[in-house]
Amino acid sequence: MTDTASHEDPLLVAGQSYGSRLLVGTGKYQDLEQTRLAVEASGAEIITIAVRRTNMGQDRDQPNILDVLPPDRYRILPNTAGCYDVDSAVRTCRLARELLDGHNLVKLEVLGDERTLFPDVVATIQAAETLVKEGFDVMVYTNDDPIVAKRLEEIGCVAVMPLAAPIGSGLGIRNPLNIRTIVENARVPILVDAGVGTASDAAVAMELGCDGVLMNTAIAAARDPIMMAGAMRKAVEAGREAYLAGRMPAKRFASASSPIEGLFF
Amino acid sequence: MTDTASHEDPLLVAGQSYGSRLLVGTGKYQDLEQTRLAVEASGAEIITIAVRRTNMGQDRDQPNILDVLPPDRYRILPNTAGCYDVDSAVRTCRLARELLDGHNLVKLEVLGDERTLFPDVVATIQAAETLVKEGFDVMVYTNDDPIVAKRLEEIGCVAVMPLAAPIGSGLGIRNPLNIRTIVENARVPILVDAGVGTASDAAVAMELGCDGVLMNTAIAAARDPIMMAGAMRKAVEAGREAYLAGRMPAKRFASASSPIEGLFF
Amino acid sequence: MTDTASHEDPLLVAGQSYGSRLLVGTGKYQDLEQTRLAVEASGAEIITIAVRRTNMGQDRDQPNILDVLPPDRYRILPNTAGCYDVDSAVRTCRLARELLDGHNLVKLEVLGDERTLFPDVVATIQAAETLVKEGFDVMVYTNDDPIVAKRLEEIGCVAVMPLAAPIGSGLGIRNPLNIRTIVENARVPILVDAGVGTASDAAVAMELGCDGVLMNTAIAAARDPIMMAGAMRKAVEAGREAYLAGRMPAKRFASASSPIEGLFF
Amino acid sequence: MTDTASHEDPLLVAGQSYGSRLLVGTGKYQDLEQTRLAVEASGAEIITIAVRRTNMGQDRDQPNILDVLPPDRYRILPNTAGCYDVDSAVRTCRLARELLDGHNLVKLEVLGDERTLFPDVVATIQAAETLVKEGFDVMVYTNDDPIVAKRLEEIGCVAVMPLAAPIGSGLGIRNPLNIRTIVENARVPILVDAGVGTASDAAVAMELGCDGVLMNTAIAAARDPIMMAGAMRKAVEAGREAYLAGRMPAKRFASASSPIEGLFF
Repeated sequence: MTDTASHEDPLLVAGQSYGSRLLVGTGKYQDLEQTRLAVEASGAEIITIAVRRTNMGQDRDQPNILDVLPPDRYRILPNTAGCYDVDSAVRTCRLARELLDGHNLVKLEVLGDERTLFPDVVATIQAAETLVKEGFDVMVYTNDDPIVAKRLEEIGCVAVMPLAAPIGSGLGIRNPLNIRTIVENARVPILVDAGVGTASDAAVAMELGCDGVLMNTAIAAARDPIMMAGAMRKAVEAGREAYLAGRMPAKRFASASSPIEGLFF
Repeated sequence: MTDTASHEDPLLVAGQSYGSRLLVGTGKYQDLEQTRLAVEASGAEIITIAVRRTNMGQDRDQPNILDVLPPDRYRILPNTAGCYDVDSAVRTCRLARELLDGHNLVKLEVLGDERTLFPDVVATIQAAETLVKEGFDVMVYTNDDPIVAKRLEEIGCVAVMPLAAPIGSGLGIRNPLNIRTIVENARVPILVDAGVGTASDAAVAMELGCDGVLMNTAIAAARDPIMMAGAMRKAVEAGREAYLAGRMPAKRFASASSPIEGLFF
Repeated sequence: MTDTASHEDPLLVAGQSYGSRLLVGTGKYQDLEQTRLAVEASGAEIITIAVRRTNMGQDRDQPNILDVLPPDRYRILPNTAGCYDVDSAVRTCRLARELLDGHNLVKLEVLGDERTLFPDVVATIQAAETLVKEGFDVMVYTNDDPIVAKRLEEIGCVAVMPLAAPIGSGLGIRNPLNIRTIVENARVPILVDAGVGTASDAAVAMELGCDGVLMNTAIAAARDPIMMAGAMRKAVEAGREAYLAGRMPAKRFASASSPIEGLFF
Repeated sequence: MTDTASHEDPLLVAGQSYGSRLLVGTGKYQDLEQTRLAVEASGAEIITIAVRRTNMGQDRDQPNILDVLPPDRYRILPNTAGCYDVDSAVRTCRLARELLDGHNLVKLEVLGDERTLFPDVVATIQAAETLVKEGFDVMVYTNDDPIVAKRLEEIGCVAVMPLAAPIGSGLGIRNPLNIRTIVENARVPILVDAGVGTASDAAVAMELGCDGVLMNTAIAAARDPIMMAGAMRKAVEAGREAYLAGRMPAKRFASASSPIEGLFF
């Protein structure tokens, strides 16, 4: 699914190669047409769908999102949004596999409470263990804890997806050093998931060395979602290229002899 | 000089319309060929040249930067880098006008000291008054003081260019609220000038509502200046589009009923 | 152990009341005399000792730290620093209980790796469950994950101690919103443990509503540890009083009609 | 006016020695009694009074603030709050000198606009020149521009007082690097004036090396102004002592070999 522009720097997840490093969700749009246009403007190739909230075939009499976002064009990534325990998350993944004719790629999230939507990392680890054993390719949502992130990689998850900030908050990357530490320790792709609010947040994630960014509300809740989708596409590319290009060192002044001179007092 | 992509949202400076909102300098490159390639990759249409440090015709026996960056293709913006008093800044602008056959557009900077390269705003105001009277179109470098910025506008400067951080520091936007206040008060274009270090910094500047960004070191001192130039191009566009698209409100949690709930304790 | 000054606002941990909200460690000092003087200057009543690194009676032929910090004057809080798995942490607590004649109060930490010293929250939860069952009063070091913090409270820990930043980093509170969320959710005391670098960091922790702060390196690695201990004492009191006094709302300008007007763009 | 506790580290302004580094204003309190109690709790020795808004003798029939804050106990520092031009500021200082029987110490502020209350640095410089020539000891409010701050020192001001943030905003120190640069360049006392919101803000100002902090709203607009005054007193002392004690270097991890390792990416 790589496009020409980025074929030299593809995102590799579970043995598959992607030209876009921006992954998008499908919730909170006005209607399916707006969803379709925003997804298109984002350039995303991996589209995540909340199985428990979206009709992707469970109800044959209702509009099916897969008619708008056809699986032969997009990599559909079913997710377990709304699951607060191991069992419901695991069952949701099994259902998704059925609906998608055996596709194994899932995004696992097990949330800890309804107010904050922070992940429950203990339950997430348990669910990941089960799903990996059942042959799923698990992309896993987690907090920004470097030890938990490494554990999820060791379990066999194909990508680890730490939050930037709480789901739907738009607060941007609250703890860049944690994200950076997770990236440094990782051998699987690290994608920031949740908390991005605007274009610069996405660029920052990529500049920290993340392999990609997943977002939904930042696009869907913008005043003009379709324009924002295009902005996010460029921001992810800009951040990636800035990371690869190797930024100038930050110094207090151009005349400073060391990159850090005096920054810590 | 607008290109098709941005003809609906041009930057207007001194009655001229530009498709790109990224302005770049020409210092600190390996050689003129690298300068040329980086400028091209940046998509910039306005190119600023330090008159006192660059041969733009003063020395007929040396390579002339205008051969590489021809004035019929780029808007050349001579600047007064290296000037620490009113007189030398004013004289430098007059020299530039001569060398460029009467072009009036200049970037004024009067610096306060060599260690920090902070602007001397008092001298800057004086020089701006003189230059405006002499018919120059003055784009003016200043600190991030909203009162000084407004004063420079009232004098008749065609654009006001507050710093993000000290020249050559790469520290990004140190005081976003000041930049935002300057933007809110302005009737002329506000461009962030100096201090941008990486792509996200440029995006932040645009998301604050700035009309453009000017940079030099962030591109020239990157490990791969040409790739970084492209990253900056995309970052400026991403930030502009995110600004126009209207970002989602930031909240502590998706469930919060007010955008700010609890952020100040 | 309350002193007069703070008897109206004591810290309550495991049914015991303390006048000081600053807890200090004993590592990294020049010698026991410096330890003693710094502890005294800090005003701390709870002193944490790394059982595996300090002689508190294991070796009868060496100087015993309890001779310098006598348990009848200070509440000794043995900790499991240097433990990277459940078993060693649990065994260390049992040893401490023996050495301290049956005192039950311990600080549990189970670390995830030697480079970052981040906690292993999964192992921490397991160790906490065992220790609580064995009758220990467990003060528990953890990361700043609100869901894990709540879980540790539900297990029966008597205090939850999230990090501000990695142990020994001195980076201050990296994620104030997480700490704030932990405080809001808690029914047991929340104390920031690890990462404080200077006095203002301690004040910030208290202003977020924490019940106390524990530190070691910030005092021991200051140029003048004894003066820094006094600074930290005042900073914790200042932060606590500012929290209780109810700070002014933050606004962009005095003239702004709402506390937040324009802070999110 | 030094007290015993701080006689070894006094604040020196205009040849006078002070034991407290916290200066407070008298506006926005419920009544004169609350003013008096808050001032007392703050431990401040220098009290600033807005001449144009407060009766310090102009009206003999109204309560005089000097009856509550007697000049033999406090150093009264008349200020020019509410002045938006050079003339009114200069005239206000002359009036204050008269009312205070020839006392020369004044705090000069010339504001730029009523919405933001940012200083007008050009007018401030002009007024300072006049006042210094007339024999005043000028403590001068300014923005955080290092070049302007140095200029004000060169004119002969006895102390330079950069803002932390806009007056009455409570936003804390918006640009610590600028404040630090001003401190490094200075030979007169630097006091942060305006923008402090809570105790940790005051500590940060002192940790940056400032010689003192002046505040009003942060105390007067707290829910409990008298308790907040005490908190501020301790915070200023804590920050000063932490500065003198020499903080530990900040590092990403305790194991890092250099203070900065990896902080800039």
